Amino acid sequence: MEIQAIRVNADELTSFCKRAFKKYGFSDKDADTITDVLLAADLYGVDTHGSQRLEMYRKQIQKGFIHVENQPKIAFETPISAVVDGNRAMGQVVGKYAMEIAIEKAKKSGIGLVTVRNSNHYGIASYYSKLACNEGLIGVSMTNSFPVVVPTFGKHPMMGTNPIAVSIPADPVDFNFDVATSVVAYGKVEVRNKKGIELPVGWGINDEGKDAINPMDIINGIAYRTCGLHPLGGSSELFGGHKGFGFSLIVEFLTAILSNGFTSNHSEDDGIAGICHYFMAIDPNLFGDAEQIKSHWNTYLQEVRDSEKAYQQDRIYIHGEKEAEKHQDRLDNGVPILPKTLEEMENLAKQLDMEFGITLPE
Amino acid sequence: MEIQAIRVNADELTSFCKRAFKKYGFSDKDADTITDVLLAADLYGVDTHGSQRLEMYRKQIQKGFIHVENQPKIAFETPISAVVDGNRAMGQVVGKYAMEIAIEKAKKSGIGLVTVRNSNHYGIASYYSKLACNEGLIGVSMTNSFPVVVPTFGKHPMMGTNPIAVSIPADPVDFNFDVATSVVAYGKVEVRNKKGIELPVGWGINDEGKDAINPMDIINGIAYRTCGLHPLGGSSELFGGHKGFGFSLIVEFLTAILSNGFTSNHSEDDGIAGICHYFMAIDPNLFGDAEQIKSHWNTYLQEVRDSEKAYQQDRIYIHGEKEAEKHQDRLDNGVPILPKTLEEMENLAKQLDMEFGITLPE
Repeated sequence: MEIQAIRVNADELTSFCKRAFKKYGFSDKDADTITDVLLAADLYGVDTHGSQRLEMYRKQIQKGFIHVENQPKIAFETPISAVVDGNRAMGQVVGKYAMEIAIEKAKKSGIGLVTVRNSNHYGIASYYSKLACNEGLIGVSMTNSFPVVVPTFGKHPMMGTNPIAVSIPADPVDFNFDVATSVVAYGKVEVRNKKGIELPVGWGINDEGKDAINPMDIINGIAYRTCGLHPLGGSSELFGGHKGFGFSLIVEFLTAILSNGFTSNHSEDDGIAGICHYFMAIDPNLFGDAEQIKSHWNTYLQEVRDSEKAYQQDRIYIHGEKEAEKHQDRLDNGVPILPKTLEEMENLAKQLDMEFGITLPE
Repeated sequence: MEIQAIRVNADELTSFCKRAFKKYGFSDKDADTITDVLLAADLYGVDTHGSQRLEMYRKQIQKGFIHVENQPKIAFETPISAVVDGNRAMGQVVGKYAMEIAIEKAKKSGIGLVTVRNSNHYGIASYYSKLACNEGLIGVSMTNSFPVVVPTFGKHPMMGTNPIAVSIPADPVDFNFDVATSVVAYGKVEVRNKKGIELPVGWGINDEGKDAINPMDIINGIAYRTCGLHPLGGSSELFGGHKGFGFSLIVEFLTAILSNGFTSNHSEDDGIAGICHYFMAIDPNLFGDAEQIKSHWNTYLQEVRDSEKAYQQDRIYIHGEKEAEKHQDRLDNGVPILPKTLEEMENLAKQLDMEFGITLPE
């Protein structure tokens, strides 16, 4: 029997996270920012990147990866670009700071491109691209990360899951694309492991350089950096694995190379080599009338939605729609959290000497 | 027994193409441009996009899609962007014109973004991104096309194969990524059809909305617009089909939506609705020192090449390496052309009342 998640009120969860991050030592402003990013993930249904990461961030602070009092700063800039040194501050604080620079430059000059070095895990990529989209701009956000993805024909993890997020204003729902350039997110392997289900051939490679079937092969392989997940498209060129591999190299270039930061294969556990990001904001008025462009986009996306369906399918989802529906449901009915995670949160509250403040069902 | 291709001298092939395009009615300059793009494909080993397309272009001229005397023009511009109206000129002529605008703007302002409407088939995407790369810039090139790709959970083709090309200066070989956002290029289905081999599950969908196994299901489905190829990642979300779908929608946005042109599903056979492109050139000096960035990139790519290999694999290819090796081989030993294609070319020469000029083996 599957364990039922408990629905937790979003405001209570928000308050809990803010109070916890303040106890971790963050300023009020930074605690607000970090919480906002985590709650966006919780509300959009990206449960692996939401408040359940509280513990992960605490460990990263203890290890010295994250410096709670540090702030990012501009290392180099032009009217349309910047290099930000994250200064090993919290990834969400760095990410928001850098995307706001991109937005400001786009509003003044039509475009803003910002690359970032020495940051940390920044949560969901699309939080930042949506910041631009909310201002009527096209938003792009990418990050490298801990090495988990192997090159096509390789077995050593050399890239992160390296997500690419692109947000473009649209009605009735903004287009919001946010995908790992690996064939699947690492969280999906963990889920299969918990459920005791084998992996489909094509998700990853084992220590021997062959198809990984046992989820633990990937989990251990990533922990010890001996093997990992395949890029989008799988293990070979038959289904385009070299395409996902290329997308993930491009993310490394825009994040780690342009910023003179560390590529994913060097994001070592020693706390020195940080994570790198890339942000871009583009004003559609660079190409004419933004309203007319949006209207043309709306028409096309509706044509795609309305087009004929595959066997036994009744709906074509445009990127961002599933998330928008989950967002509304979770605002109305609460964020589903597993009992074990809630227990961890309650213990965390005790350790931090703060009120738990989350109402559990009778 | 497989039919052996005949190696044709590249200079002779170049001369043949130039003379043919002049006979089609193109100016000397335009014939040179078109030939240069086709020969790049021939030399890089992208045989489906090279001189064997002579006949396809002739048909498109006859149908009135391509207007041989037309020239593209700027419809709207800012210091960092432009919208180009292709004016239904030959795609290669439009593409080179638009990318040169992007390069010029990048040299002056750091970046150039150019979207294009009312064009035609422009050949290989990376020809244009390499133009920027040859100038030390980061080059991006995309195009929409005839509808052949279905949305995730859909069966009606709503997108083109919508390639994305990204070229970034590197030593010893420039990084040169050029991939369709479909799971495979359409040409691979044609090859399987000729060889009488079934399609692997995940390449495409048939008229009934189920997995296409017979190559003819895809070939007919595309001709009659009833079904088509899946996006990169395949038919479902299990291997990330929604990711390829999203990439192909982004290509539609940058090409057809930003330019106020026609999306792939409207690129009708009536000759009115043209193909749309997108080009971008970025000066790496926007982020510091271009030489230092290139050196950092070289180091990382070499680390990837040198990393451990999968079972029975002895080499990891960085994007552009295979093409560079083929380029050298074909310059030295000739471009392989199938006897049937050579026969078509010989007939074409007769029809156009021009010398064949290609030396065949004894």
